[in-house]
Amino acid sequence: MGNFENIPKGFRFYGTHVGIKKKRKDFGLIVADDVCHAAAVFTKNTFCGECIPIGKDHVKNAELQAVVVTSGIANVATGKIGRENEYKILDCLSDKLMIKKENILPSSTGMIGPQLPIDVIEDFLETESIDLKEDYEDFAHAILTTDQRIKVRSLKIGAATILGIVKGSGMIEPNMATMLAYIVTDAKIEKEEIHSILKVAVDQSFNTISIDTDTSTSDTVALLASGHHEIKPSELQKALDQICKELALDVVKDAEGATKTMFVTVKNAETKEQAKNAGKSIINSPLVKTALFGNDPNWGRIAMALGKTDGLMFDQNKVEIFYGTYPIFSNNKEKTQNIDQITEYIEQNEDIYLTVDLHQGVENFEVIGCDLSYEYVKINSDYST
Amino acid sequence: MGNFENIPKGFRFYGTHVGIKKKRKDFGLIVADDVCHAAAVFTKNTFCGECIPIGKDHVKNAELQAVVVTSGIANVATGKIGRENEYKILDCLSDKLMIKKENILPSSTGMIGPQLPIDVIEDFLETESIDLKEDYEDFAHAILTTDQRIKVRSLKIGAATILGIVKGSGMIEPNMATMLAYIVTDAKIEKEEIHSILKVAVDQSFNTISIDTDTSTSDTVALLASGHHEIKPSELQKALDQICKELALDVVKDAEGATKTMFVTVKNAETKEQAKNAGKSIINSPLVKTALFGNDPNWGRIAMALGKTDGLMFDQNKVEIFYGTYPIFSNNKEKTQNIDQITEYIEQNEDIYLTVDLHQGVENFEVIGCDLSYEYVKINSDYST
Repeated sequence: MGNFENIPKGFRFYGTHVGIKKKRKDFGLIVADDVCHAAAVFTKNTFCGECIPIGKDHVKNAELQAVVVTSGIANVATGKIGRENEYKILDCLSDKLMIKKENILPSSTGMIGPQLPIDVIEDFLETESIDLKEDYEDFAHAILTTDQRIKVRSLKIGAATILGIVKGSGMIEPNMATMLAYIVTDAKIEKEEIHSILKVAVDQSFNTISIDTDTSTSDTVALLASGHHEIKPSELQKALDQICKELALDVVKDAEGATKTMFVTVKNAETKEQAKNAGKSIINSPLVKTALFGNDPNWGRIAMALGKTDGLMFDQNKVEIFYGTYPIFSNNKEKTQNIDQITEYIEQNEDIYLTVDLHQGVENFEVIGCDLSYEYVKINSDYST
Repeated sequence: MGNFENIPKGFRFYGTHVGIKKKRKDFGLIVADDVCHAAAVFTKNTFCGECIPIGKDHVKNAELQAVVVTSGIANVATGKIGRENEYKILDCLSDKLMIKKENILPSSTGMIGPQLPIDVIEDFLETESIDLKEDYEDFAHAILTTDQRIKVRSLKIGAATILGIVKGSGMIEPNMATMLAYIVTDAKIEKEEIHSILKVAVDQSFNTISIDTDTSTSDTVALLASGHHEIKPSELQKALDQICKELALDVVKDAEGATKTMFVTVKNAETKEQAKNAGKSIINSPLVKTALFGNDPNWGRIAMALGKTDGLMFDQNKVEIFYGTYPIFSNNKEKTQNIDQITEYIEQNEDIYLTVDLHQGVENFEVIGCDLSYEYVKINSDYST
């Protein structure tokens, strides 16, 4: 972890404690040597943070050179002062790093409501030196909130490297984008293509997960490409898809209080959208999630959650439900002979694969979620006070 | 409770243990002396129970004379055999009570999946006598599952009486109707009007509550009117609205594991639908619900949940959020001076009133939900095995 072999050429990182959180790192930077081609997707939450409109504005020419993240306070619902504070940070950084402020993407994550301690941050940036390194570890720590661990993935495509860093473990049902995820690569990606490449990868990864049905106010996924290596577009897309899937899975694996990960595949739906909605209805059902926590093969709740999916019609008689490879429901009958094996399967595995076959069309979709535990209630009833 | 003064003229009740549950009452009847004008609304869950299509068929001529409820097993996802079992019960009852089976509305609630122990039920109905009484108490007990108490409301309108009996405490986010609720009255209601009168009352009551976002497979609300007293239609509607609101609140008050009830009013939205959707987004957010359980005035989560409401656009600068009468957010600023009072308000009250004012239009809507506690996780991770 953190070693320079998986760092794409042309990027350096920084992470430190400036004083937003009590002790832990709360200020991170990614800085490219030159202006990169870039794209980003953002939360669709209407009550979005002050960084979101600034970020949208700064990335609209498909160029970025740096990312700055403050953690501990989300700078959401902070109005004019919140917006001004964000610009103060960008102005300081612009002077210090000699980068145009329009080429910096700001993000902020943490408590909704309070103002950033802007004096402390400005003071830090005016007096302390920033030692950028070819090591992402401090940055990856600096962006965390309730996360239990840093989440970093990298892979090689030819001579190029893709590196992705993500944070998130609660308030996770991304709508369009998710949490904070930064992907940097030294591959060359054309300005005209970079947004659609990112969008394809995000739709297949971050947009398929849900921890608690709550869509964050600060979700951002950004991709910066420094352009050192020419890579075939199809290979690049494949690699980016893979990195995003791995990062999204890392987020679910770090879900607040979760003890199990559930992979739900809805098969043979009429449309991909229906398959996805049905899968989401299942992984978001509190009754399905508590049953999973209790190692309970309560497929009746799967049937209930499938049935309440908005806009999905199906024939009960054709539906099949499987845990792992074991059928539990088909021909409108419970396969009672499999209950013991399925109970054992749930008890003994952390990753639970659930398949619902609608036998209605040819479209499949997989979504990923987790269980709902005492610990989730504990973490989230204790958080702010 | 149970006394004959609040029993509408022309109805008798029954409740007993036949052997679906281990010990508790699991078989209930409401029987009218004559055929009543009747209406019912049912779950929109596609994976609905075997009683639902039979009930829709039987009530379509706006006539019913009896209701039969089995509890402990929901008779859902049970296919052809499940359907046949339900008709066997209706045939037995039709013979025994000398009522056309098409005038009986069947309901079933409990575990999804297993078949009803039909031999035991048939045997009981063929051998035991049914002693119908002018007392609803046994019936109200016979329809319960995870409920902690019976839920019965009645009121007088002129010479007439309305009596409502409901069950439900989990798998509650009614879509169109909810749970099992039976309302009987000796008022006269015309066949042509009874469905729309019921629909109006249900939309303002059962359709405004949510315990856990999960829509039951067996939801049914039925209204039977024996026609002894002429009542002004507007008064009747008002009385029915009130009974339905009281019953719906009783359900939320009995919510699985809940310690608090939250009344969320969204004010000054452009449409009632938007106000309702925003309210539902707030009361259904696990992060809002866990904060409530923790007595945490975490209004940032209210803002987040408001912002993720599908199809709702608003101006953050205009939004105001109140706990009780205390503003916590307005002019895009936290009212920090009120935090202590609000914390005290949440700690000291079981009923929490939250108001979100969008300042966008003139439509208001109130929805009712509850908190998410350890006990909810316990109840639902322990339920079937």
